[in-house]
Amino acid sequence: MVSVEKALQAVLNSTQDFGVEEIPFIKSVGRILKEEISADRDFPPFNRVSMDGIAIDFASFKQGQKSFEIEGIQAAGSKQIKLQNAKNCIEVMTGAVLPKSANTVIRYEDVTIKNGIATINVDSLNDRQNVHLKGKDGNVGDILISENTMISAAEIGVLATVGKSFIKVAKQPKVMIVSTGDELVGVDEIPLEHQIRRSNVFSLVSLLERLNISSETAHVTDEKSVLKSKIKKYLQEYDVLLFSGAVSKGKYDFLPEVFDELGVKKLFHKVAQRPGKPFFYGETDSCNVFGFPGNPISTFVNCLAYFYPWYYKSVRLKVDVEIAVLGEDVFFKPNLVYFLQVKLETRKGELIAFPIKGNGSGDLASLVNTDAFIQLPNDNIEFKKGNTFPIIRYR
Amino acid sequence: MVSVEKALQAVLNSTQDFGVEEIPFIKSVGRILKEEISADRDFPPFNRVSMDGIAIDFASFKQGQKSFEIEGIQAAGSKQIKLQNAKNCIEVMTGAVLPKSANTVIRYEDVTIKNGIATINVDSLNDRQNVHLKGKDGNVGDILISENTMISAAEIGVLATVGKSFIKVAKQPKVMIVSTGDELVGVDEIPLEHQIRRSNVFSLVSLLERLNISSETAHVTDEKSVLKSKIKKYLQEYDVLLFSGAVSKGKYDFLPEVFDELGVKKLFHKVAQRPGKPFFYGETDSCNVFGFPGNPISTFVNCLAYFYPWYYKSVRLKVDVEIAVLGEDVFFKPNLVYFLQVKLETRKGELIAFPIKGNGSGDLASLVNTDAFIQLPNDNIEFKKGNTFPIIRYR
Repeated sequence: MVSVEKALQAVLNSTQDFGVEEIPFIKSVGRILKEEISADRDFPPFNRVSMDGIAIDFASFKQGQKSFEIEGIQAAGSKQIKLQNAKNCIEVMTGAVLPKSANTVIRYEDVTIKNGIATINVDSLNDRQNVHLKGKDGNVGDILISENTMISAAEIGVLATVGKSFIKVAKQPKVMIVSTGDELVGVDEIPLEHQIRRSNVFSLVSLLERLNISSETAHVTDEKSVLKSKIKKYLQEYDVLLFSGAVSKGKYDFLPEVFDELGVKKLFHKVAQRPGKPFFYGETDSCNVFGFPGNPISTFVNCLAYFYPWYYKSVRLKVDVEIAVLGEDVFFKPNLVYFLQVKLETRKGELIAFPIKGNGSGDLASLVNTDAFIQLPNDNIEFKKGNTFPIIRYR
Repeated sequence: MVSVEKALQAVLNSTQDFGVEEIPFIKSVGRILKEEISADRDFPPFNRVSMDGIAIDFASFKQGQKSFEIEGIQAAGSKQIKLQNAKNCIEVMTGAVLPKSANTVIRYEDVTIKNGIATINVDSLNDRQNVHLKGKDGNVGDILISENTMISAAEIGVLATVGKSFIKVAKQPKVMIVSTGDELVGVDEIPLEHQIRRSNVFSLVSLLERLNISSETAHVTDEKSVLKSKIKKYLQEYDVLLFSGAVSKGKYDFLPEVFDELGVKKLFHKVAQRPGKPFFYGETDSCNVFGFPGNPISTFVNCLAYFYPWYYKSVRLKVDVEIAVLGEDVFFKPNLVYFLQVKLETRKGELIAFPIKGNGSGDLASLVNTDAFIQLPNDNIEFKKGNTFPIIRYR
């Protein structure tokens, strides 16, 4: 049995590089950028009018002039025109180029227009007011988005602005999720008394979807020869295999044996934690194998606690560990790291984790009432309300 | 000009009911459940073995018996067998039905098996240990997931378990996102000096994708007759129209006028906030119209601050307002609610919002460096570090 720390280290030491692919920018939300995005022009690319109104030469106003004859209109999207006479003005629209020889914009709210003459109703103006100066937000060549950023709506706007209709992102791993266990029947079926429906593979599919990874699923019966031939094929065809069940001490828990016979190098089997202890982890040259225990909560927490960090490191995404305040005292005697289900609340800016007692690792329904796991270390048996510990959110 | 509070109230008073549709459960992550999900059987449905080992009659152990002849094996997925002789035992596997007449399971780790005899190596046992009793987590008919829950991986597992291969969820609104502004060119184009590329529509598409809403986009030139005929059609065909631009005071800001002529009832135009002030909001009998100002940050924040709550209330999803601690002093003089961009950090369980100064509402690139907006009220001009305010996350 290894410690949680050692297990995580082994997982993080065996990451993969899935390579890079180019995709349309609009399909890239949630993907990890694999190039630097830099400005193709200054930001803004011209002295940009930021209020609807009139543009003048500030010097004229400074000399006491309040009324300006309107020479023309500078609309957004029109070529730059020129203020011909410094005593005149030009009507300008938000987003337009500031007319040549003008430098200051007065919004319509502060102007009266009559018979082609605009009169300014305020006593003071600032030189260059309401002008978003060329290059103020950035210059051509500036790096706007760093490599290894996860794309969100904010990045999408920038990508559009700089004309990156296609971008390089990390390829996603090819994942197969395999359930075992002869007690399992399909979701559509009516189970006999001693049977239950498959559920873990679907939870795993959804947990991977959160990472924008699409996966395939299969169910294999608890027969060693069948398991062996199927897994042999999967090991060749996929980057990652996730299993749920058949890794414990049962008579039909063939997986560790089959892995061994197929040349999967065991990196650890059993971790000092609850739930999720009988977790098997191994690798071949081309495939990582996560053998999660079959209990629903065990599979769920191990996917979050091991597969997620493995994926993040594989694609070089930096993800900070989140810390929460324990909302009530917890007593836990076994010398194991305790992944305890919690409901999260923010109160006055504090993130508080309230433990919700489930009925053990088989109690799938309890996950519906919680938001995260809080990770309590095994160096203590009493955990006081108000102390802080890492959490792993799943919603 | 209305207050942010009044504007939000008007938005929330004009929600829609998009109806209900039935979809495959595995496609339902992020959707809002529109039925109650209850247990179709007890949870677990039988007395379930939770450790690999042997099952005995506790009474025999209590009378001092330590060695038990093995009568047979109860595998997971096999029909329940019976312990014929209370002095014997049956090997049992995790997930199996507890054999009839047995009541206690001892894990293999605590047993030595030799010549068909299992000898228990521990001095004390608990009656019914390692048995997950029928109905312990829930009973047939219990409500496991409430209506109006957002489906996550946790709910997916429960849906599979109870055999709900199809579920009722809220339909999503039909959304059209329209950009206006003759200065805009496509992402693939090289803009002339006075032009920029379209970006707001794509940011909006991505912000809606976060809500699992797929949307359509269009660009309409700043010509009143074209705008009018297109919008007339959109009003009939969509549940919601989102506009970016053409709602301010400019000569070509035809939208409010066009809306009026097409019978869109104005609920407000201009909100006492920065950025995003010239926001127009209106409705017809069948369509809600969000006219966001054209500046990138204005569009972005208004989508989060108004469209999101409108959507949540329309589908009856309860979303708590998140509160963060301001990370440094902020001074803001205008009598406007200030949506300030912040970078979030958790420190010792506290969620701290550090203001990042952008260059005003046109500075799209600044969104890349922040995570949320903190909402500072207009009843003050000085906001002290350490005080708490609502935030709106966008990643």
